[in-house]
Amino acid sequence: GFAKIDLHRAQRQGFPEVIFGQGKTKEQITKIISSLIFHNEVILVTRVDEMKAKYILQHYPNLEYHQTAQLISTPLKDIPQSKYYVSVLCAGTSDLPIAEEAALTAEIMGVSVKRFYDVGVSGIHRLLSNIHDIRRGKVSIVIAGMEGALASVVGGLVNHPVYAVPTSVGYGANLNGVTTLLSMINSCAPGTSVLNINNGFGGGYNAAQIIHMLENKESEVSL
Amino acid sequence: GFAKIDLHRAQRQGFPEVIFGQGKTKEQITKIISSLIFHNEVILVTRVDEMKAKYILQHYPNLEYHQTAQLISTPLKDIPQSKYYVSVLCAGTSDLPIAEEAALTAEIMGVSVKRFYDVGVSGIHRLLSNIHDIRRGKVSIVIAGMEGALASVVGGLVNHPVYAVPTSVGYGANLNGVTTLLSMINSCAPGTSVLNINNGFGGGYNAAQIIHMLENKESEVSL
Amino acid sequence: GFAKIDLHRAQRQGFPEVIFGQGKTKEQITKIISSLIFHNEVILVTRVDEMKAKYILQHYPNLEYHQTAQLISTPLKDIPQSKYYVSVLCAGTSDLPIAEEAALTAEIMGVSVKRFYDVGVSGIHRLLSNIHDIRRGKVSIVIAGMEGALASVVGGLVNHPVYAVPTSVGYGANLNGVTTLLSMINSCAPGTSVLNINNGFGGGYNAAQIIHMLENKESEVSL
Amino acid sequence: GFAKIDLHRAQRQGFPEVIFGQGKTKEQITKIISSLIFHNEVILVTRVDEMKAKYILQHYPNLEYHQTAQLISTPLKDIPQSKYYVSVLCAGTSDLPIAEEAALTAEIMGVSVKRFYDVGVSGIHRLLSNIHDIRRGKVSIVIAGMEGALASVVGGLVNHPVYAVPTSVGYGANLNGVTTLLSMINSCAPGTSVLNINNGFGGGYNAAQIIHMLENKESEVSL
Amino acid sequence: GFAKIDLHRAQRQGFPEVIFGQGKTKEQITKIISSLIFHNEVILVTRVDEMKAKYILQHYPNLEYHQTAQLISTPLKDIPQSKYYVSVLCAGTSDLPIAEEAALTAEIMGVSVKRFYDVGVSGIHRLLSNIHDIRRGKVSIVIAGMEGALASVVGGLVNHPVYAVPTSVGYGANLNGVTTLLSMINSCAPGTSVLNINNGFGGGYNAAQIIHMLENKESEVSL
Amino acid sequence: GFAKIDLHRAQRQGFPEVIFGQGKTKEQITKIISSLIFHNEVILVTRVDEMKAKYILQHYPNLEYHQTAQLISTPLKDIPQSKYYVSVLCAGTSDLPIAEEAALTAEIMGVSVKRFYDVGVSGIHRLLSNIHDIRRGKVSIVIAGMEGALASVVGGLVNHPVYAVPTSVGYGANLNGVTTLLSMINSCAPGTSVLNINNGFGGGYNAAQIIHMLENKESEVSL
Amino acid sequence: GFAKIDLHRAQRQGFPEVIFGQGKTKEQITKIISSLIFHNEVILVTRVDEMKAKYILQHYPNLEYHQTAQLISTPLKDIPQSKYYVSVLCAGTSDLPIAEEAALTAEIMGVSVKRFYDVGVSGIHRLLSNIHDIRRGKVSIVIAGMEGALASVVGGLVNHPVYAVPTSVGYGANLNGVTTLLSMINSCAPGTSVLNINNGFGGGYNAAQIIHMLENKESEVSL
Amino acid sequence: GFAKIDLHRAQRQGFPEVIFGQGKTKEQITKIISSLIFHNEVILVTRVDEMKAKYILQHYPNLEYHQTAQLISTPLKDIPQSKYYVSVLCAGTSDLPIAEEAALTAEIMGVSVKRFYDVGVSGIHRLLSNIHDIRRGKVSIVIAGMEGALASVVGGLVNHPVYAVPTSVGYGANLNGVTTLLSMINSCAPGTSVLNINNGFGGGYNAAQIIHMLENKESEVSL
Ligand SMILES: Nc1ncnc2c1ncn2[C@@H]1O[C@H](COP(=O)(O)O)[C@@H](O)[C@H]1O
Ligand SMILES: Nc1ncnc2c1ncn2[C@@H]1O[C@H](COP(=O)(O)O)[C@@H](O)[C@H]1O
Ligand SMILES: Nc1ncnc2c1ncn2[C@@H]1O[C@H](COP(=O)(O)O)[C@@H](O)[C@H]1O
Ligand SMILES: Nc1ncnc2c1ncn2[C@@H]1O[C@H](COP(=O)(O)O)[C@@H](O)[C@H]1O
Ligand SMILES: [Mg+2]
Ligand SMILES: [Mg+2]
Ligand SMILES: [Mg+2]
Ligand SMILES: [Mg+2]
Ligand SMILES: [Mg+2]
Ligand SMILES: [Mg+2]
Ligand SMILES: [Mg+2]
Ligand SMILES: [Mg+2]
Repeated sequence: GFAKIDLHRAQRQGFPEVIFGQGKTKEQITKIISSLIFHNEVILVTRVDEMKAKYILQHYPNLEYHQTAQLISTPLKDIPQSKYYVSVLCAGTSDLPIAEEAALTAEIMGVSVKRFYDVGVSGIHRLLSNIHDIRRGKVSIVIAGMEGALASVVGGLVNHPVYAVPTSVGYGANLNGVTTLLSMINSCAPGTSVLNINNGFGGGYNAAQIIHMLENKESEVSL
Repeated sequence: GFAKIDLHRAQRQGFPEVIFGQGKTKEQITKIISSLIFHNEVILVTRVDEMKAKYILQHYPNLEYHQTAQLISTPLKDIPQSKYYVSVLCAGTSDLPIAEEAALTAEIMGVSVKRFYDVGVSGIHRLLSNIHDIRRGKVSIVIAGMEGALASVVGGLVNHPVYAVPTSVGYGANLNGVTTLLSMINSCAPGTSVLNINNGFGGGYNAAQIIHMLENKESEVSL
Repeated sequence: GFAKIDLHRAQRQGFPEVIFGQGKTKEQITKIISSLIFHNEVILVTRVDEMKAKYILQHYPNLEYHQTAQLISTPLKDIPQSKYYVSVLCAGTSDLPIAEEAALTAEIMGVSVKRFYDVGVSGIHRLLSNIHDIRRGKVSIVIAGMEGALASVVGGLVNHPVYAVPTSVGYGANLNGVTTLLSMINSCAPGTSVLNINNGFGGGYNAAQIIHMLENKESEVSL
Repeated sequence: GFAKIDLHRAQRQGFPEVIFGQGKTKEQITKIISSLIFHNEVILVTRVDEMKAKYILQHYPNLEYHQTAQLISTPLKDIPQSKYYVSVLCAGTSDLPIAEEAALTAEIMGVSVKRFYDVGVSGIHRLLSNIHDIRRGKVSIVIAGMEGALASVVGGLVNHPVYAVPTSVGYGANLNGVTTLLSMINSCAPGTSVLNINNGFGGGYNAAQIIHMLENKESEVSL
Repeated sequence: GFAKIDLHRAQRQGFPEVIFGQGKTKEQITKIISSLIFHNEVILVTRVDEMKAKYILQHYPNLEYHQTAQLISTPLKDIPQSKYYVSVLCAGTSDLPIAEEAALTAEIMGVSVKRFYDVGVSGIHRLLSNIHDIRRGKVSIVIAGMEGALASVVGGLVNHPVYAVPTSVGYGANLNGVTTLLSMINSCAPGTSVLNINNGFGGGYNAAQIIHMLENKESEVSL
Repeated sequence: GFAKIDLHRAQRQGFPEVIFGQGKTKEQITKIISSLIFHNEVILVTRVDEMKAKYILQHYPNLEYHQTAQLISTPLKDIPQSKYYVSVLCAGTSDLPIAEEAALTAEIMGVSVKRFYDVGVSGIHRLLSNIHDIRRGKVSIVIAGMEGALASVVGGLVNHPVYAVPTSVGYGANLNGVTTLLSMINSCAPGTSVLNINNGFGGGYNAAQIIHMLENKESEVSL
Repeated sequence: GFAKIDLHRAQRQGFPEVIFGQGKTKEQITKIISSLIFHNEVILVTRVDEMKAKYILQHYPNLEYHQTAQLISTPLKDIPQSKYYVSVLCAGTSDLPIAEEAALTAEIMGVSVKRFYDVGVSGIHRLLSNIHDIRRGKVSIVIAGMEGALASVVGGLVNHPVYAVPTSVGYGANLNGVTTLLSMINSCAPGTSVLNINNGFGGGYNAAQIIHMLENKESEVSL
Repeated sequence: GFAKIDLHRAQRQGFPEVIFGQGKTKEQITKIISSLIFHNEVILVTRVDEMKAKYILQHYPNLEYHQTAQLISTPLKDIPQSKYYVSVLCAGTSDLPIAEEAALTAEIMGVSVKRFYDVGVSGIHRLLSNIHDIRRGKVSIVIAGMEGALASVVGGLVNHPVYAVPTSVGYGANLNGVTTLLSMINSCAPGTSVLNINNGFGGGYNAAQIIHMLENKESEVSL
């Protein structure tokens, strides 16, 4: 009774309901998974710490746990080979968990990803030397903390949609990512839109949706 | 000397530099227009009040002023007939100027738009009775003030990208749109990303970019 | 000496003093309970974690602990059968503790409750398919986190008072529920008023007060 | 085309759509009025300054303008004589416009109102000497600016629902009423819920809805 | 070398330097105490948790630890019998630690205190029945959390200076006492001034300073 | 009917009700003055701009308008010669209106004032060369904008109560005085308490109250 | 009496007192100028609008008004030819007034300036093509609004001190420059420090001070 | 793959990449160190707690751990003897860790430092008695929490650049240092610029950069 799983979401939105693991007990998550599996849905659970993951995988050993990204999913058999790819960028090492949440979400949705990590603007040559490949992707996801300047710089260099994901990486006046979020929302580069702080999942989901449309398939998953 | 116009932006980003009219004098705007026209660029100026518009159109009578949207542009010869369209929704009458800024931006970029205005959630039947047509678009732009709930409701009903544009319509604890922005950034519906307060232009630009990609043309403008 | 219990509150306000357990030691709570029991008052303690509850129930084994809701109360003998009922809605699984705090508060005050859980707007059919029964209640309590859109949607669909209770469910720009609170305060639907973040008790108390008035009894409790 | 008036709201919510005048042009308001009149609806327009009111009344001389409250309405023929009344309190002289917005909204909805103005807590005898009559009402609306302490004091003295309406009366750290709002949301008195800053209309609407329920009539208007 | 103790403060300010214990290690505190004792100063250390207190009292067993107030001091031999007293009020049980910090600070500075605890405005009779004695004091310190309304009510009832000390007691939109602080700063009652959140020490210090002046002694301490 | 003047305030609080002129019409102010005069009260109106003052003085030519301070009062016959004086300090030229509001309030309440203006900390010799006279006063009122550092510096140099009044003088991150207020509330100097932004009146009132107590007269006014 | 001009500041700080014109009347400014001129000081007044400037220049026709920068100064005879120069960058056309405030402040203090205007990151080639000359300066002042990303990018490309000056250019979630300020304070590039919003003067002053030290002259002015 | 170390930063910026230890695992830090050592770079890691330090020093026993400052570095062989020194000031004992972070950063960069600790403004004689030596330095770093007044006072007394570093020392309305930051940004003393909360490293880095320039060496390190 505690959860009304949204079983026709795959139909309505092109992908089954994704479980937000944070704030749910391991038992609640397991129960929701069991119900989704019963209906043959693809499984994706975000924000699962190792402790919970262990418990869940004991019950569903066929699922896969991606530790950096804190995701549980139906295992990714092959890395997807979609026609177009998503460029996933992050500014620094500490942004990795969110970057991986974004990248894996897209991959689980059947979409190819190219990763460009630790390319923050304080050493802009690292970005510029990769810009050709970043541009060849059809969507960019830019993950950064602190002042989030990477989003604006990338936004000015590509001609495809940019999803900016602020992270809570920083301290003091970073205000747990609120400063990064506000900064990105004010980006002077057109073609950029913003997700919630640390919402790598949202970036990956949006990007995959665009690639799906470009490939004329609206809800296929490649696992 | 006061402005370095970004003349190869059309090449780099698929659309020439758009002039942000607010905070510039009418003389500055006119000078930038003259330089863009000299380089044969399409003109788009946002946030131009009537006073400034009058002055500018005296110098460039071939340009067109869209009063509700507060835009000046190379005139829209025919309403664009792109293969796919963008659904532009707004919650209430007072959101109209931003909705028109979004819709016209997309149209000036050569993209078809279907408008769904005054469909806010306090009378949700107005939205539901239009949902079929909204869904048939390839991107939605949702413009709302106050608590911005429309973005989440639409986000849960369509399977294409949703651009949420918070407006400053409201009073008191609306905090000039900051509440609406925060609310939309927290949307529980996947597939939604957010622009700055009153940034109708950003919504239109992003949406048009996606339609361009779907139609395999990356920078054509339909005027 | 440390507490002046407000013993004629039942007379003045229709219900005895309710103890806010958070921030009080288990010994302080036990002492206040003993004094209320001495005066034959109904007991209701909110925000009691399991640790404290165990201690208190060792001293007062006749009391009842509701774990999800984190409440201790004089035991609810029968589920109350009032003439009118309160509709208690929540958006997602993580809102359950607050929803139960609201529902049980009303029940302990002798008022019938119908629960509508996990009916958030990202899958609005779950709400719409229950709307007839929600409307038949005389008051609604809407409990939601994140952007809190559910309050506005419900507010537009019922013709009775709606109490909106923001929860701290969410992350990042949710700001521990402050965004949800601001969002609900800006609701575009008339007939909605707002309680503090996670104040399920307040929602239940207000709702019960209205049902009491409708049934012409101002302070009866049904335990 | 610019507005989809919500014509079955009276049915759905017990009262026809009320027009929020602020941010609408006088022409827009007049057009919406004409459409409502065509459908025989009661008219209520809030936040209308004198300038706009003059224009509107030239077109609809049968309507009435309440200057302090900044309301236009179908004229109040007789002061309503409902079985129960609403107590409307305000803390100081500067809160009057919002207090009148609340009181007149209730009266236009057919509900009796007793006014208790300038009874702020800095001279609490003014409140205490009226408390008997305040209590005899079935709902209280408490309108206050600055620190909004009146809401808590009243909340502790009555046993019926209290609607707290913060106003933007104050200066400095009052932050245009945000402090008052936050203060009221934290009220230590149970039975209090809160409206947006300066939302006298919301207070009146909620209160009238409760009186309607108590009198078993759900949408009658007494003009 | 790490601390320059302000040894002529007693001369300059009427009372020796008080040690702020929070954020200092137990060793640092002990070292500062030893230096003050060497100079024959009265000792007062605030914000000392039990763990630290134990360590310090092992080194200085002549000092006294006040657990609720989290203070260490030169022992209070007799309760001071000053000609005038300070009224210390608090709203609820959870405000006790701060109330005691205030009261004991004044007492250690040689000033009589009368305590009025748990007299919050939600049951205002508890305050009114004590008002005569509160008024007879020469200064009031009002300690409250949540919406802090008690400060305004007291401020309107006495004709001596009121020091309002906001506490972090509350939750949600209380914002850890920031709401209470803003509320008190906006008090509509003249004669009230405000201290930092939980700064009971500051309230006690200010009050004692006034009593000292009234008794024509500027720095005597009564231990 | 619109105002319940608090006529026994002089008795209860030692000084008659002071009228806060801001947000009241000139007619409302005049009416309240007439009622106070009828009861033989001393008149003090704060925040009166020149326009309103002119109107009011036409009706009550015996009253006096202090332009810098924006006050109307019963005329100050002689500068008061109380036994003790209040030191009023301000940091810069732009703080003058608030400094004068404070100083004149105290003088109208019969208390001597010594003014120390433009003594901000960026040129600290201006303060230090006056410190002897500042210290000889029995209370200090420190008025400053920007970062408000003057309050802490003075607080560390005197052994009497300091009332810190933040002003809205500053720009950018000063946030209209909120930064100054927060800064002063965090003052590291004991013996300091804080008033609302620009509340010179509050500073003067508090200070005068203390001087009254020192002189054993609790409500005399010296006009 | 209203101002204590800090006449030995030139000695103490290397440059005479600069007058902050905003919030002062034209008469006050004129009086302060006259006093400084009497003491043979160099004049610099910031934030002077045209209206005030006209009045002041009627009295002191030898002074010079810089309209874009809103400065009045002792006239700049020759553009200073210091050994080292300051690089002044701004992101967009609307940042010009602040950029000129910075540049002219430095020049009036005798320091050479190279201007790099409209080089914001949305078209980063404009910056990169100038980077050699920017680097050759000994200090950079980076003036930008919106998300302020330019400061971080420049900070990562130069090996001299960078002063970041946020401007209030932007809208919505820019919060009048607060977002830009927070963003710059969080810059991921070492070697960057931040001034108040729109404080071009502060940037110029700091930069000039460094150049002075490099040239071994600590307070010379080059007019 | 997880980190792209910025190896030509020493060349571009005058000092090799400094590792921000917070938020990185001990293994990640060790890997980055190994790569920098491989390229013969000087090592500086900030924000390393004891636990991590122990692990890292087991792998690189030649490195040095500075506990108060929480830094790991190539060992400081001799205290640097540069021609000019930096004055490092802090207000209180609790600011020490940040003060040491600043001082050691400068020393590791080969620059002499003079420490002036616990010289906060609440006892201003402690500052004034050291002012001659503070002034003789070429740059000041002022580290303070609470209201941060020390920065303004120092700023007004020296004629060299002042870097203000706010700390999170304080409580309540200090808001974890945000108040201190805002206060310092509003400093009324020219010649002051601000770093992020607790960013001692930034202060030290900036100061060392200036000393390097004064000594005509741009990237030498003195270990
Ligand atoms: N990491 C995430 N961030 C934001 N939304 C998420 C995340 N993971 C899942 N969701 C969304 O959260 C909703 C599920 O919420 P719940 O019913 O509480 O499990 C679904 O609509 C998901 O699309
Ligand atoms: N003063 C007011 N404050 C808040 N809501 C209002 C007010 N006046 C009207 N409304 C509501 O605003 C809605 C109409 O908005 P609109 O369509 O913009 O005219 C209706 O649902 C009213 O119930
Ligand atoms: N609980 C407290 N709250 C505020 N200030 C305090 C407190 N305890 C001590 N102080 C003040 O803090 C200063 C000592 O700070 P410190 O040098 O860090 O020990 C003294 O000036 C005291 O007057
Ligand atoms: N535009 C400005 N921004 C910040 N500070 C300024 C500005 N112009 C002048 N100042 C400083 O403000 C102080 C003068 O303030 P005042 O005494 O109010 O004129 C001087 O210390 C100047 O250094
Ligand atoms: Mg890196
Ligand atoms: Mg509408
Ligand atoms: Mg769900
Ligand atoms: Mg009054
Ligand atoms: Mg109690
Ligand atoms: Mg000055
Ligand atoms: Mg430009
Ligand atoms: Mg100290």
